[in-house]
Amino acid sequence: VSADALVLGPGREFDLVRGFLARWGELAQGVGGDCAELDVPAGSRLVVSTDTSVEDVHFRRDWLSAREIGYRATAAALSDLAAAAAEPLALLLALTLPRGWRDAAGEIAEGVAEAARLAGAPIVGGDTTAGAALSLTVTVLGTAARPLSRAGARPGDALWLTGTLGGPAAALRAWLAGAAPDPVHRARFARPLPRLAEARWLAGQGATAAVDLSDGLAADARHLAAASRVRLDLDADAVPRLAGVELAEALASGEEYELLLAAPAALDAVAFAMRFGVPITRIGRVAALAAGERPGVHARVDLPGGHDHLSP
Amino acid sequence: VSADALVLGPGREFDLVRGFLARWGELAQGVGGDCAELDVPAGSRLVVSTDTSVEDVHFRRDWLSAREIGYRATAAALSDLAAAAAEPLALLLALTLPRGWRDAAGEIAEGVAEAARLAGAPIVGGDTTAGAALSLTVTVLGTAARPLSRAGARPGDALWLTGTLGGPAAALRAWLAGAAPDPVHRARFARPLPRLAEARWLAGQGATAAVDLSDGLAADARHLAAASRVRLDLDADAVPRLAGVELAEALASGEEYELLLAAPAALDAVAFAMRFGVPITRIGRVAALAAGERPGVHARVDLPGGHDHLSP
Repeated sequence: VSADALVLGPGREFDLVRGFLARWGELAQGVGGDCAELDVPAGSRLVVSTDTSVEDVHFRRDWLSAREIGYRATAAALSDLAAAAAEPLALLLALTLPRGWRDAAGEIAEGVAEAARLAGAPIVGGDTTAGAALSLTVTVLGTAARPLSRAGARPGDALWLTGTLGGPAAALRAWLAGAAPDPVHRARFARPLPRLAEARWLAGQGATAAVDLSDGLAADARHLAAASRVRLDLDADAVPRLAGVELAEALASGEEYELLLAAPAALDAVAFAMRFGVPITRIGRVAALAAGERPGVHARVDLPGGHDHLSP
Repeated sequence: VSADALVLGPGREFDLVRGFLARWGELAQGVGGDCAELDVPAGSRLVVSTDTSVEDVHFRRDWLSAREIGYRATAAALSDLAAAAAEPLALLLALTLPRGWRDAAGEIAEGVAEAARLAGAPIVGGDTTAGAALSLTVTVLGTAARPLSRAGARPGDALWLTGTLGGPAAALRAWLAGAAPDPVHRARFARPLPRLAEARWLAGQGATAAVDLSDGLAADARHLAAASRVRLDLDADAVPRLAGVELAEALASGEEYELLLAAPAALDAVAFAMRFGVPITRIGRVAALAAGERPGVHARVDLPGGHDHLSP
């Protein structure tokens, strides 16, 4: 069915997949059949999420290397498993590869593998097709006895944040102004670290709800408040941000892949930082709704709107 | 990050998802969080597959209605669960929606829902993004106590085929020649029926291996032979084909979404046809490899090469 501009050559789809399998080695498991087969441990729930990264929507070619594109798309999907405090089980890669990206396919696959290895998630399937725009849809599966979600925050919980915000927004600001971003900012955009082990540890310490900051802190805090039917009292000044990032930018910065959690106030932040090499900061508290009050976020500053991939 | 040509407007992504949820009703379960949560019954294995349909690669806009595009992409993904004889558990939709398709988003979603309802699969998650080309990546999850795969065919099994081949190839031939396809041929392209209940019944009757004909009978028979390490003796003349379809076209016709199975020769084909309203035909047998023989397919006709989405 291929339009002429998109075709490769006879057997090229299979050649590509063979090339991926050679690079992935034992990380690839059972790829090539109609379905992958997996076992979910007894007593565990299955959690699943799918996440698409499209050229000129989520990134531009001159911003990232091919390897970073593969890594980042995979890490972004895995971050949804972190929000559930799930153990990664497997991932699938649906790759749409335009002609102009063919020579970079191997590097993209290396980036996917790098994120998968860090997470301990085998690559169990996928689909490779031609198309006019580079696109990666990564589906992740994980397991957890009791997955965290946006619902579940309880009045009296504290509001905790992993990491230091603002890097992705600052990097974008620089790129869109035609400048080179600060390397620290750029790294937060190009090589996010899904907080998988961190989330499982926090769930073990009594965390009651979590959301990853794909839409930015202000927007995702609203999502958590709505799902948990609570008010979040946010101490915006406490939000840690990178050098060179204004507060408003840190609150709006999307695609952060840090976690916002409701968890006990007595959490040992020093033990967390020593264990994982990343800070966790108390940035507010969970409050019960007053009679007639709608779920939302209170802060002493104006909160920016959320990050919407379909918006400017 | 959106390029200017791709943007919608503030909150438009959430508006789209709300519109989908309104159309899907109870078919949508748990959409909106970071992850969907599912339970896999004890004693069942999880099977999972992902399948991408891209405009101008898998279909053209003037060939199909928006509803058919949604239906077909979803049915194609569900067909992989049929090849595993799995019970559908859930599906996720990653939709890339260019500006020119925005008004059709609701109809696409209706088509997705129609296929999901037929299969009894709730829609549990997804991702909606802008992009330059319409693309649907559907991930399907299913369960089976003992999934079928391409491996497992045993010498002595018969080779069985569901349905009547050639419709998709004949429809494509007409479209590419600028003609209107025969309505019967068109329907096989536009509205394939994943053989889900059929496959589970056949597994219960002792089927040992199965593959769906996404690449065409000749190519998928080779895949089954290779995975099972057997020779398939194919009686090509026995392959049922639609009126107006030559044998070679039927053998090469991809995206059929019928099933090729290894199963006992004594299968009750009449009972199958009465139960499911579709024929099943014995088209050959599974043979042991002779010493030094490589897995493959023997037939009295020259077999065409497989269908490759990345080839002309």
